[in-house]
Amino acid sequence: MSSIRYWEDFRPGETHALGSYEFTAETIVAFARDWDPQPMHVDLEAAKRSPYGGLIASGWHTTAAYMRLLVTSTFGNAVSLGSPGIDQLRWLKPVRPGDVLPARITVLETRASESRPDRGIVRSRGEMVNQAGDVVMQLEAVNFFGRRPD
Amino acid sequence: MSSIRYWEDFRPGETHALGSYEFTAETIVAFARDWDPQPMHVDLEAAKRSPYGGLIASGWHTTAAYMRLLVTSTFGNAVSLGSPGIDQLRWLKPVRPGDVLPARITVLETRASESRPDRGIVRSRGEMVNQAGDVVMQLEAVNFFGRRPD
Repeated sequence: MSSIRYWEDFRPGETHALGSYEFTAETIVAFARDWDPQPMHVDLEAAKRSPYGGLIASGWHTTAAYMRLLVTSTFGNAVSLGSPGIDQLRWLKPVRPGDVLPARITVLETRASESRPDRGIVRSRGEMVNQAGDVVMQLEAVNFFGRRPD
Repeated sequence: MSSIRYWEDFRPGETHALGSYEFTAETIVAFARDWDPQPMHVDLEAAKRSPYGGLIASGWHTTAAYMRLLVTSTFGNAVSLGSPGIDQLRWLKPVRPGDVLPARITVLETRASESRPDRGIVRSRGEMVNQAGDVVMQLEAVNFFGRRPD
């Protein structure tokens, strides 16, 4: 039995745990130096004086961590054909050093492509949750997946 | 005269060039190994066999490159207080090795915060454009900025 996931294997309403990602001061600063070098993400002293009261992760770091967990978990072993985009990406709570955040995906909708018989479309909600059970990041993604060969 | 940008300095309708980012095979693979290790982003041979016909950048790499240009350009010298989220993030065309993509931001709307007198809200459209003039990535962002002190 193959463990490869085709479009037909996504079922609306199902939720999958994707594992966890640990944020440290070192990874928060390293990501932000490359991609989002604002003081609250790269400078501990400036971050203390900010409204956040200390270092927080770039929202793009949290989103990248979600993507990494999605692709590297068993759920990621799918015939992925790319994505046209994301809606309603929300950073709801600050992410701080020491946070170990589990991610989960919920399948919202699946439909066959009308123009491309080789693929189907999956709309999903992705979330990362903190130790208090609060959702810190959520997004709605659209992805294309290959259809199961006959 | 201060070059710091406060909420009052954003004006609806204005567009600013943010500089360019160069995508190479090396940076495409390096980003994707960390955050989005799908075959079309990390494996040249697998990418050739994919519907894209060759290596393409992770959409999250393109988005991170936009954020980097936004923060490191002169436009980024602002009293940024974070962002609640992004809407309508779209990856419209593949980004490939050798692409040198300029970014631009257009201010869509500004309004004072009703709950926090120290800040205002700016809604903007961010875009990256390829050599043919096609928009390859666009998003709508909401950001908080500090108000100019009296």
